[in-house]
Amino acid sequence: MRSIQVLKGNVVYAQKRTELTCVENGYIVTKNGVIEGVFKVLPGEYRGVRVEDYGDKLIIPSFCDMHLHAPQFAMLGMGMDLELIEWLNKYTFKTEARFADTAYARRVYRMFADALIKKGTTRVAVYSSVHRESTHVLMEELERAGVTGYVGKVNMDRNCSDDTRETTEESLLETRRFLEECKGRYKHLTPILTPRFTPSCSNELMAGLGKLQREYGVRVQSHLSENRQEVEWVKALHPDSEYYYETYEKYGLWIENTIMAHCVYSGERERAAMKEAGVVVAHCPDSNMNIASGFAPVRRMLEEGLNVVLGTDIAGGALLSMRDSATSAVRTSKIRWLLSDKKEDFLTVAEAFYLATSAGQAYFGAGPGFQAGDALHALVLDDSRLPETRPLTLEERLERLMYFSSDDTIAARYSEGELR
Amino acid sequence: MRSIQVLKGNVVYAQKRTELTCVENGYIVTKNGVIEGVFKVLPGEYRGVRVEDYGDKLIIPSFCDMHLHAPQFAMLGMGMDLELIEWLNKYTFKTEARFADTAYARRVYRMFADALIKKGTTRVAVYSSVHRESTHVLMEELERAGVTGYVGKVNMDRNCSDDTRETTEESLLETRRFLEECKGRYKHLTPILTPRFTPSCSNELMAGLGKLQREYGVRVQSHLSENRQEVEWVKALHPDSEYYYETYEKYGLWIENTIMAHCVYSGERERAAMKEAGVVVAHCPDSNMNIASGFAPVRRMLEEGLNVVLGTDIAGGALLSMRDSATSAVRTSKIRWLLSDKKEDFLTVAEAFYLATSAGQAYFGAGPGFQAGDALHALVLDDSRLPETRPLTLEERLERLMYFSSDDTIAARYSEGELR
Repeated sequence: MRSIQVLKGNVVYAQKRTELTCVENGYIVTKNGVIEGVFKVLPGEYRGVRVEDYGDKLIIPSFCDMHLHAPQFAMLGMGMDLELIEWLNKYTFKTEARFADTAYARRVYRMFADALIKKGTTRVAVYSSVHRESTHVLMEELERAGVTGYVGKVNMDRNCSDDTRETTEESLLETRRFLEECKGRYKHLTPILTPRFTPSCSNELMAGLGKLQREYGVRVQSHLSENRQEVEWVKALHPDSEYYYETYEKYGLWIENTIMAHCVYSGERERAAMKEAGVVVAHCPDSNMNIASGFAPVRRMLEEGLNVVLGTDIAGGALLSMRDSATSAVRTSKIRWLLSDKKEDFLTVAEAFYLATSAGQAYFGAGPGFQAGDALHALVLDDSRLPETRPLTLEERLERLMYFSSDDTIAARYSEGELR
Repeated sequence: MRSIQVLKGNVVYAQKRTELTCVENGYIVTKNGVIEGVFKVLPGEYRGVRVEDYGDKLIIPSFCDMHLHAPQFAMLGMGMDLELIEWLNKYTFKTEARFADTAYARRVYRMFADALIKKGTTRVAVYSSVHRESTHVLMEELERAGVTGYVGKVNMDRNCSDDTRETTEESLLETRRFLEECKGRYKHLTPILTPRFTPSCSNELMAGLGKLQREYGVRVQSHLSENRQEVEWVKALHPDSEYYYETYEKYGLWIENTIMAHCVYSGERERAAMKEAGVVVAHCPDSNMNIASGFAPVRRMLEEGLNVVLGTDIAGGALLSMRDSATSAVRTSKIRWLLSDKKEDFLTVAEAFYLATSAGQAYFGAGPGFQAGDALHALVLDDSRLPETRPLTLEERLERLMYFSSDDTIAARYSEGELR
């Protein structure tokens, strides 16, 4: 029975987008870090096992940050008076160039990984820089801290700064080498192909990455239709492609589980292509506001049955906490609600919570909430030091804890079944 | 010389809306808590005085929160799926009713006052509830914590819940009593007349408050043109008034230094009336997003020469930190920039910093930044534990510290010259 772990508390999770499940004074039982079940009453077979009693606290799934740039953690909150392309040139490439230095990478990525765990994010789909070695540094630091997920070495062979540009050959060789080196090296981290975005990848590079994808069966992440200027630029670069997404599709990178960040300007046809291919949309509300990209049609995407997840997009986004990302998604959805004359419903807090937890979990093959058979990824939330109020329902307490996102409201973090 | 205090650090403040002043390794000298001057080199007369050396840290003016509701601190982050009127009825009035109990008020207001100081807010224009006694509790707690400014007992005699509604007579009598009791009672807190908003105040109440204003010479704060539904409601209640602001004007409450929160739907005529009367606009960006009110025309107001300040509007706003309020103002201004086809410039971070500090200070009779003759209100900001980056200018460091708003980036707080 040593491998059995029992957590007690108010278990709250999103079974569906529109359905919050609350088990008051419930139990989560795990065996070797894998969930056995959530119970209202502890089954007899677990009697005698020590219970980790979190009292009146909430136990929720930990968060999945499905789009962010690790090196940009060093420039969080900078250049916020610029739009995408200018911001990339004036800040981003300069920052990322420094990650050629693995010692520098070690220092920044250590802080970054610790900050993620502190804020309750245990699963990510994250970009590194173009540097293969520093990408391993990032993965080592994530694994040490207990952050799991997908990590991509970025590919760029054009339209970036001289000190971040790779040759096409180099980019492909380094990526292949990266994929090889990852084999068996990390327990809970997987490489993912990461062409930065169409403007920074030549057709030859894209074609080569498509080949690598087929050879290694790896997943893909990139950016799509974030900013009007960018969309126009892509059109100019690919006059044969009517839609932005086709610039990925024609090289075999528009496939099941490809994560496309932003999709602010993805129209009906592009969205239909996502659904057809099983492409996942990473909605990054704070980034869309900060670098003034626009207002993503999230409600429509959800109604169309697209797979939408949330990302902080550090450092286009300036909020590392996924709770802030979720409430930002609510806030920005209200812009579309107002602009649509209240026809396009805004996201509820419960829906945003679903997107930040269960929707992201699905990308890692896990069921919604706490499903038997899945590794335990959980947070224990403590609202005992928040201002005194009337007795609240668990739904209300969760809502409040989503907005009151200070780190000290997280009492414990579990990743892959381990207390972190 | 005992009354002389010298602070050393990188002094940064907003002299004008469009002009940041940086004094690297500068000195702020105060005498009995009042600023003598900011110096690049410490003048000879202060030699021998002990210098409080903050090293490479930034010293900036502390923040002014010019619109917030103290009792709603107890419901921060709740009911965020509702619009203004529904939110008032389902959450706000119920919460405020509890402040009839001064012991409850003491517990909540103690946390509230401490939280303000922790987040670097030392000056406020704040609403209490309708309860006179609890308003004194609020003032006692603010004074204890070192928060200065204007505090209003709310007036409401219609269109609210039974347990928060006053009779007209009671409302006026209690307000008069409150004004009398405040005489000589508080060192740095001043009462302010606070008719909640036109829908909750009868004409008789408004007229009575206008009389009290003239009798006591007190300032006024209220709400204006926050939400479309509210604007329509006011029109129905005052068929003789073409504009919302006239419902205050006709009772003598639209006067110099009246603070009007929101003004999202204030058109040209209403804005011109503000300028003419010397009315101050308290822009509350996070609140406008959360309860989906709309997008205030802040750039236009500034261009028209209106006096705009910032407020968190707790708990329509869910962010108590004025740094978050300032960056929210930047974020929401980008909505108008996008919607205006990039014609209406968004706010820069420096401008938002100006609004959160110098613009607010003016309401308290202080000059911009650190002016000789003004009481010292300052924060010492520490970015030494933020991610390592290239050497930054002081402007960049300030921008970053506005976005990286965690409490632990504030190393010290001064209010009225005292370390808090």
